[in-house]
Order: sequence, then structure tokens, then C-alpha cells
Amino acid sequence: MSLPISFLSDFGLDDEFVGVVHGVLAKLAPESRVIDVGHGTPRGEIRAAALSLTRAIQYLPEGVALVVVDPGVGSDRKALAVETEWGYFVGPDNGVLSPAVAMMGGASVMVSIENPEAMIPSPGETFHGRDVFAPAAALLASGEASIEELGPVLGPHSVQPLLLPLPETMGDTVAGEAWWVDHFGNVQTNIGPEDLVLLGLGPGSVVTVKVGASLHSIRWVSSYSDVEPGEPLLHVDSAGLIAIAVREGAADEDLNLTEGAPVTLAGRGSTGVG
Amino acid sequence: MSLPISFLSDFGLDDEFVGVVHGVLAKLAPESRVIDVGHGTPRGEIRAAALSLTRAIQYLPEGVALVVVDPGVGSDRKALAVETEWGYFVGPDNGVLSPAVAMMGGASVMVSIENPEAMIPSPGETFHGRDVFAPAAALLASGEASIEELGPVLGPHSVQPLLLPLPETMGDTVAGEAWWVDHFGNVQTNIGPEDLVLLGLGPGSVVTVKVGASLHSIRWVSSYSDVEPGEPLLHVDSAGLIAIAVREGAADEDLNLTEGAPVTLAGRGSTGVG
Amino acid sequence: MSLPISFLSDFGLDDEFVGVVHGVLAKLAPESRVIDVGHGTPRGEIRAAALSLTRAIQYLPEGVALVVVDPGVGSDRKALAVETEWGYFVGPDNGVLSPAVAMMGGASVMVSIENPEAMIPSPGETFHGRDVFAPAAALLASGEASIEELGPVLGPHSVQPLLLPLPETMGDTVAGEAWWVDHFGNVQTNIGPEDLVLLGLGPGSVVTVKVGASLHSIRWVSSYSDVEPGEPLLHVDSAGLIAIAVREGAADEDLNLTEGAPVTLAGRGSTGVG
Repeated sequence: MSLPISFLSDFGLDDEFVGVVHGVLAKLAPESRVIDVGHGTPRGEIRAAALSLTRAIQYLPEGVALVVVDPGVGSDRKALAVETEWGYFVGPDNGVLSPAVAMMGGASVMVSIENPEAMIPSPGETFHGRDVFAPAAALLASGEASIEELGPVLGPHSVQPLLLPLPETMGDTVAGEAWWVDHFGNVQTNIGPEDLVLLGLGPGSVVTVKVGASLHSIRWVSSYSDVEPGEPLLHVDSAGLIAIAVREGAADEDLNLTEGAPVTLAGRGSTGVG
Repeated sequence: MSLPISFLSDFGLDDEFVGVVHGVLAKLAPESRVIDVGHGTPRGEIRAAALSLTRAIQYLPEGVALVVVDPGVGSDRKALAVETEWGYFVGPDNGVLSPAVAMMGGASVMVSIENPEAMIPSPGETFHGRDVFAPAAALLASGEASIEELGPVLGPHSVQPLLLPLPETMGDTVAGEAWWVDHFGNVQTNIGPEDLVLLGLGPGSVVTVKVGASLHSIRWVSSYSDVEPGEPLLHVDSAGLIAIAVREGAADEDLNLTEGAPVTLAGRGSTGVG
Repeated sequence: MSLPISFLSDFGLDDEFVGVVHGVLAKLAPESRVIDVGHGTPRGEIRAAALSLTRAIQYLPEGVALVVVDPGVGSDRKALAVETEWGYFVGPDNGVLSPAVAMMGGASVMVSIENPEAMIPSPGETFHGRDVFAPAAALLASGEASIEELGPVLGPHSVQPLLLPLPETMGDTVAGEAWWVDHFGNVQTNIGPEDLVLLGLGPGSVVTVKVGASLHSIRWVSSYSDVEPGEPLLHVDSAGLIAIAVREGAADEDLNLTEGAPVTLAGRGSTGVG
């Protein structure tokens, strides 16, 4: 029984990169189902890819996660294979795997993929997705290789972590950031509902949202239909985080929010955001 | 034997939404083949998605059609599962399923998906594609649930229809609209060849095409090669409708046509379009 | 045992074209795995699609390659099925298959797909991907038809070749062109490392790169990390060709290079590029 492979990259869909990786997987793990988690991560954006994987991982079938967002390809960054309770993670040692591995309970084994027999020989050093990561993922998925056969075992502190910004509570405000703007213009923050509850806020509260120098009063509701079309709302999104949305609209445009922008939340009448 | 699942949405491919739905389907219906009908419908455009599904449905393998174009997510719009001779349709009760269901002979059973055991629990109310529609589609595809187990049966008049504009014949003209502009710039109208035949026109006729205040004389031909490169043509397209195209060019740009724009057709010398 | 089908087109992913072809393949070859090589070829760009297929083919599982980049649809261009040692190629007779077929050792049999029983009847003549090419690919993949059953056998000189520009060495310079700009802004040329070796250059050499009237001195290195972030480099890319890249940047923007632009390479101090 071959394991399913879930594949995430920043390759985009203009070229044949994604298709070539699928070809390698089909040749080396012909029985594995392959799921495209997504290939639209902006190029080289490690954090965006790590967050995307983290949001998706619990909904993906246990098996192998293949992640190729690799601005350091061709440098001496390591190629990793990681075993967890969920299954295997394969990708570059740049932190992109770390949050999802941690969410799945941490690594039981980590190796540096170095065995040339587990790779596809290539004239160049630029397509490790095809030549290094896909073969390793396929060998693990098909059971043709154990993780230890891919290369030397690594200690827990020899891989790159990924530092994700945490929200900061100061007095009656919580300062976080826009973590993700999705296709619909919804803005996920790194602030959880528990952070707002600590400020004495709850569903139904009007929250003051500070973006740049602008203040917005937005109600925390449970679903889009609690406000009128075109109106903004705050809600707990499908990943369990506080998000800013506009019913049948795009919050990123209306509030002038981009990924990484600071967002401060407070109760109505707070002086901390004034 | 698991049924194939054909999946259409307006999620786009920038985020992991489509991948997460594939993950849910792979977990709950591991034997089902999943076909991406498309995810490029402009966000929330129910009519465009309904037309896309209608054009595709006869070419999709009988099984389950999963459609998530759902601007009313989080409101009290119902979540539908519909049984037809073709198979099952799963999606929001906003009309997006209606034309394809009608084309497949109508519904034999319709239910409102309300059984919490058929859903994935979620912190938020915004990703019904993942939490409500995909599980229902997977349960039907795998045979793990009957349609009646998903929720209460609905009467035939308790679901939203979708009103599609019909062309109108007035004297020696037929007034319709641009129904779809495809990737190549071809413009499909809602006018059928039979509408032109009623005006005494046929293949080979020169047709007067009125767009806004502009009149164009365009020949009705059977294939692109009947005109020179760069020239416009009228033809019966692959869905059986009258379409305006430019050989090796883009008719939407040349004729300044967008989806929904009125298009009036008439014979040469008609006074009705003058 | 059904053969895998690798599918390349210029359909884009905005419409349901790709999904409909998948539907036809699933209906007619339900056991075949289908790999999307890519659908982002600019519309009608035969050469770009041919190069993409050529780069991909050795990584795709042996089976059927279905290629639909077909600006001449509806003309009298033939529909081809080609047998090679790799497997079958199906697509229009416009040269798009030729380089990959040649790379796979040439055709052993070529037929013109003309058997109406191998096609899907259609009201229009514009979607041969759905009505002609996909059914032929599926019939070959499933073994339901032999290649000879699809239509009359063609002689070797009755199909369209594709002329690909070769680099030209003149004195101490080699003149080629930008052959492909990928998603990351890397610029693949049609010049091979052997062309530079003939000029007395090798890895480590500084190469003079002439683009338009601009001269750039760029080092030939083996990997991105041999230069600083933001610096340009010349290297042998994953297809074995000389490519121009910028570490963690986009060479096409920095050097003002587009597909098809002339690129001349020479050793430092060459007068040929002055």
C-alpha cells in the first residue's frame, strides 16, 4: 500500500515544473495518490508556505508532505526528510516544514537527504524539487526506502526553526499582524479569540481595529450574514484565528491591509489605540 | 466501487483551499477519482459557475458533482444534495446547481444537508467547502451514507432556481447577450442557431452584429479557417450556441465585448438594428 | 493495465476546458492516471509548448502524451497520433510534437486521426481537445483501439516539422537567443555548455553577455550560492542548457530579456561583441 503524497510549492502553474514533479512521483510511486495542496505561494516566501501547510495539514491524508519553496537551492542548506506521527515531511531545511511538524507532534526522526542513489542525476543544480525532493518523497511513499536510507540522521537542534510573530497584549490592546490575505480578500490575523477574551471582549462586541493611522469600529460576529452586504466584520475563521472580512466584499482593499501589516485590536473606548 | 467526484469552485489556485478540499475527499473517499472541473470562476459569480457546469456536465463521468461557489456562506441558505439520473450534485442552494440538474433530467431526491455527523467540526463558519460540502460529496461517492442520511428531504419548490436570460426575437432581429468570454477571447452568446434560422439566416449568411452603438457585418461560417487570420466570424461553438470569434485573435477585445453585454443579431439590411 | 496520460495545453485554468478533457479521459480510460504537464503555455504558442514538452518528457511515465496547442483548429491541419519507444503522442500536426518525438527516438508509426468512431460528435468544430484528441489518447491508453484503427498511416515526411533556432558560433562569440523565461525569471538560452567550451570558456570563466546594446560581465558558476544575493550568474540549468539567473532575483527583469530575444556570449575581452 503506497502512501498519498501532498505537494506544496511556489512553482506557479505557468511552466511545467509542477507537471514534471508529478511525472517523477508517478514513475517512482505509481500507486500513490498525489494531492496538490497549492503552488501559488509567492516565490521564495517561506513563511507564507509554512502557514499554508499548517492550515492544511490536519485535512490531508496521512502520508508524505512534499514541500518545495526553496530560495536557497544550490546553497549548502540541507534537504530534509522528517518522520512524525502524521507521516513524512520532505523539503528544504529553511524552516518551511517546522510549524507543521510541530503541529503534528514533532519529529521522531530527521535525516539529511544525501544518498545519491535516492536522487535523479541532473546536469544542473537548480531543480531539487525534481531531482532530490520528489524522489525522496516517492521512495518513502512507496516504501522502497526507509527514511534512514536517505541520508544521515540529524539531531533535533541541527535544523532551521521558523520564527512566527506572536501577538502582544499591552494594557487593553493586542498588537498583531495580518498573517494571510486570501483569494477572497479576507484577512487572517495572528490573533486568537482568546487574546480578545482577555481584553474583556467576546462575540457581539464592537472591536476597534487600528490599521496604520486609521481606526475602524467592527463588530465581532459569528458569520458573514450577521452584517449587511458590503459591511466589515470580525470573526473566528476556519483556522480558528481572528479574521477581518467584508460580507460579499474584500477586506484587504477596504481596510488597505497587506500581508505582514501591523493590526492592533482593542475594546471600544480603549485609549491604547487612540 | 467509489464514484468519481467532479469539483468546481471559485477558490482560485493561489491559496490552499482547493488542496484542502482534495485532502478531505482523499480521507473520506480514498477510492474516488477527483476531477477538477475548474476553480477560476470569478468569486461569487453564481451564474458563471452554473453555465460552466452546464457546459461540462455531459462530459464528466457519472458520479458526484461538488460545486462550491457560495457568496452566501454563513447565511441561512441551505446546503443541498440532489440526486439525478446522472448522479449526485452537492452545493449551496443559490441556483448554481439548477441548470445542470435540469439538463440531467431533474432531481429525483433533494435534501438539505443538516446532519452534523456528516460534517467536519470547525471553529468558524466560513469554509463550508471543507466542512460541509466535501464531506457530503465524499460520503455519497464512497457509499458511506445515503442521500437521505444527510438531512431532511426537500420539496421541489423549496430550492432556489437560477433565471438565465433567454434571447428575444423582435421582427427581423434577435436580442441576446454575451454569456461567456473564454480564455481565448471567444464570445459565446445565449443565442442558438435556430434563432438565426428563424430570421431566414443560415451558415454562409452575413450577419449584422450590434454591440453597443457599433454594427459589425460578420459571416456565419462552420470553422475558423473559413476566414482569414485576424478576421471575425460567427459560428456554432462546441456547446451548440452562436459564438463570435476572431481567427487567431480575441473577439472580446476586437468587438469590445464583456460578459453580460447585450448583443443583437440580424440579417444584412435589417432595419431593426440600425 | 491502462497507460498513464500526460496532458499539456494552452487552455489556461480560468475556464472548464481542462476539466472537460479530464472528464472525457476519465470516462474513456477510467483506469489511467492523468498528469497535468501544464496548461499555462501562452495561447497558440506552438514553440513554447514544444520546448516545455521536450524538457518534461523524460520525467513523465511512459504512456500517452496528449498535447493541445492548436491555433489551426478547424483548418485542414491533420490530427496526429504517433507511436515511439516512449509511448504515444497525440496532438495537432503543427510541429508541437516534433521535438519530443525526435528526442524519444523518432516515430515508428504515425497516423492521421480520421475515424469518426474514435471521436465525440459535436455541434461545433472548435474543441478538438475534447472531441478528437482526448478520445484518441484515451483509446490508446486503455488499449481499446490500436493506433492504426484511428486513421490512415502517414509517411515520415507528411507531417509538420518544427524549426528550432540553433546558436551560431562566429569567431570568438556564440549568438543564440532567450528560449524560455520561467516563473522565477530565469532565462534559459538555446546555447549549450559545449558551445562555450569551444570558445575556450569553462566553469569559473567570466562571460560577456550581450543583450541588445548592453554588455554584462557574468561569471559561469555551478550553483546560485556561488554569487551573492541579487547578483547575476551563468550556469548549466536543469535541462542542460546555459541559463542566466539572478540569485534570489529575476534575471529577465534585471537584464531586460524576453523570450526570443537575441543573446550573444563571448569570453572577456572578445571584440566580437563590442
